Amino acid sequence: MVLIVQKYGGSSVAGTDRIRHVAERVVATHREGHDVVVVLSAMGDTTDELLDLARQFTPLPNPRELDVLCTAGERISNALAAIAIRALGERACSLSGPQAGVFTTAEYGNAQIVEVSPQRIRRELDRGAIVLVAGFQGLNRDTDDITTLGRGGSDTTAIALAAALKADVCEIYTDVDGVYSADPRIVPNAALLDHITYEAMQEMAAAGSKVLALRSVEYARRCGVPIHVRSSFGDKPGTLVSASTDHLGTEQSTITGVAHDLSGAKVTVTGVPNHPGTVGRLVRAVADAGGEIDMVVQNAVRPAGGRTDVTFVLPREGALVALAALRETHAEIGFEEVSHDADVGKVSVIGTGMRAGSGATATFCETLAAAGVNVEIMSMSEIGISVLCRSGQVADAVRALHTAFDLDTTEAAPVHAVTGR
Amino acid sequence: MVLIVQKYGGSSVAGTDRIRHVAERVVATHREGHDVVVVLSAMGDTTDELLDLARQFTPLPNPRELDVLCTAGERISNALAAIAIRALGERACSLSGPQAGVFTTAEYGNAQIVEVSPQRIRRELDRGAIVLVAGFQGLNRDTDDITTLGRGGSDTTAIALAAALKADVCEIYTDVDGVYSADPRIVPNAALLDHITYEAMQEMAAAGSKVLALRSVEYARRCGVPIHVRSSFGDKPGTLVSASTDHLGTEQSTITGVAHDLSGAKVTVTGVPNHPGTVGRLVRAVADAGGEIDMVVQNAVRPAGGRTDVTFVLPREGALVALAALRETHAEIGFEEVSHDADVGKVSVIGTGMRAGSGATATFCETLAAAGVNVEIMSMSEIGISVLCRSGQVADAVRALHTAFDLDTTEAAPVHAVTGR
Repeated sequence: MVLIVQKYGGSSVAGTDRIRHVAERVVATHREGHDVVVVLSAMGDTTDELLDLARQFTPLPNPRELDVLCTAGERISNALAAIAIRALGERACSLSGPQAGVFTTAEYGNAQIVEVSPQRIRRELDRGAIVLVAGFQGLNRDTDDITTLGRGGSDTTAIALAAALKADVCEIYTDVDGVYSADPRIVPNAALLDHITYEAMQEMAAAGSKVLALRSVEYARRCGVPIHVRSSFGDKPGTLVSASTDHLGTEQSTITGVAHDLSGAKVTVTGVPNHPGTVGRLVRAVADAGGEIDMVVQNAVRPAGGRTDVTFVLPREGALVALAALRETHAEIGFEEVSHDADVGKVSVIGTGMRAGSGATATFCETLAAAGVNVEIMSMSEIGISVLCRSGQVADAVRALHTAFDLDTTEAAPVHAVTGR
Repeated sequence: MVLIVQKYGGSSVAGTDRIRHVAERVVATHREGHDVVVVLSAMGDTTDELLDLARQFTPLPNPRELDVLCTAGERISNALAAIAIRALGERACSLSGPQAGVFTTAEYGNAQIVEVSPQRIRRELDRGAIVLVAGFQGLNRDTDDITTLGRGGSDTTAIALAAALKADVCEIYTDVDGVYSADPRIVPNAALLDHITYEAMQEMAAAGSKVLALRSVEYARRCGVPIHVRSSFGDKPGTLVSASTDHLGTEQSTITGVAHDLSGAKVTVTGVPNHPGTVGRLVRAVADAGGEIDMVVQNAVRPAGGRTDVTFVLPREGALVALAALRETHAEIGFEEVSHDADVGKVSVIGTGMRAGSGATATFCETLAAAGVNVEIMSMSEIGISVLCRSGQVADAVRALHTAFDLDTTEAAPVHAVTGR
């Protein structure tokens, strides 16, 4: 008997027709003789609509109450799917995160799963039921309070349940056919990857790929849960995310793909006195303000005087907080100016062939130059290379790099909405 | 220090503006130095909308999952109200039914409260917080499943919490100014009652008054919780429902008011053999099918042959179920015909002066005759007298009786929507 965890995102359960479709898929899997645990996100834009209601009272609603509010969305979609599955003649039982034994830290809005106690799920599975679990939510046992898991939370729920139940696979159903070598909306000839390693997927996620959240991929890698990313709108084979590529042969390129991210903003501090510790002090100020620093680059000391420029790239909301935090250090540090620029985009090439100093790096730079892309910041890691450029140049950069690294397929990828969750 | 439980119905929290208004009222009560526990219904038509979604999958959705589904509505309204209260600068904490310690039987959709363990509520009150509790819901501890309390469930939650917390009063805020001597939409000169006993209120509820559900009045009477029915749209004094009228003087009439009910239907079995036990057998068949029998009348045996007619009055949905159940007894009992009629209405006069044989009963019958109302069924109890007539004659009957029993005031009541919850 195989145990399969299936997770469906908000667009896959956006209306009752879509929920019925999900129910049919779940029932089909169950009738093949498998145990099935289903994790659903809230229907369509439910979570955003609830947040909008809350913000009608105050721009910064209380985090504890926001978590109570938002978790209602997943309970609704799960109960409706359980009703739809029962209408198809199978046993089904929907559980809230707390009922399913998902226990978390107490950080409202961004809680971490600390334990999964799946006894109730096991019991319901043993009774022959399809078990539906509300994603994105858990319980902090110290406070007996509901929590949410933050971005990609439903994926993390599914992966954590798969790990705790020792499931054979965690299937993540979404509105794209799998992981592509680039966003098919920008690169029509992007290739659907049949396999990608956890590490490459983490880099893709960090570089802006919206298919899986970074955090959930990390969780899967740590627990060794194989993730199968598939479309809930079709029957394509999808992409397997796992540790080893052995069983897939050797045709996989060392370059995985090209990712981009338009959600960041740049904060630059110019004329920073180049004393030991001043740059560290700036980074600390941003971190203390809660800024999630995506990139930080210190430029070469300018000829005139011992001063340097420091640039941060952060998520757009965090950039404004960072800006304020940096301004508060002005008296202490004595830099010239701090500025903010949201009109930027990040383009990354992910792959094990990207080590600094290799020919790939040269190809990368030459390709961008030939495409007329002005590189503002560049940074490299073991598994990728990223640049920051004007947001208007991102699409050209992605297409040029995808071609230059021989990632284009002859077959055009289907173009449909690629959304986050 | 006074402890007040306040319950607001769906129309009182129908939108964010209304929720803000409720938050202001709650905060004002708290700032007068009182401890406040708030029970909210789901916003406006949320529960009906969720039920509609569920019925898109099947006409009879699974009851366990319906309860999971519907309880989301109260969590949303409670969390939003907590956010609104915090935005006004007071501490607030919203709790689900299970978190608030509301434990019930396992009957999904119609669970009974078996225990309230308000430790968490006490703890939050002691911290100075306004505590919001999702109404209409609880937890069955045997199954660890969410349950709902059925009709009037949020009122019952509020009254049960008031009893468990030994609150000084349970204020039920609604969209009417209180309990009237008749529906002000039908009788413009209906009087707002400043006080009504539990018993008379129970009769009014049983006779069709929508202000409080019968079950919640019974709960309050059993626990001795004073209920104060008030409008959340104004500052009128409202109606106190309690055991004694002593402190209100002696001006209270023995006739409380005129109630009506258009939600029932009539099921008639004609030509029933008048043997011992046959009528009992019919009543049993209806009861076993789950029919809530509101009235049952056996007509006099007709001259020709030992046969009789039996008429049931039930809620409209239940009438169809009863009809089917009665048809199934045809072979066994051998009646002539069973028929169904939903075009009926019930009109009742409630008051301690209504005992059978008194002049009031004669007034009642004469008044209806003078108004041209054709009485189809009549039944009497210690505290009221009810008739069934054509639905189109209900308004005339109510007005005529209200005048005949000297209930008219000189001041016209405000006419606004009188809805159930």
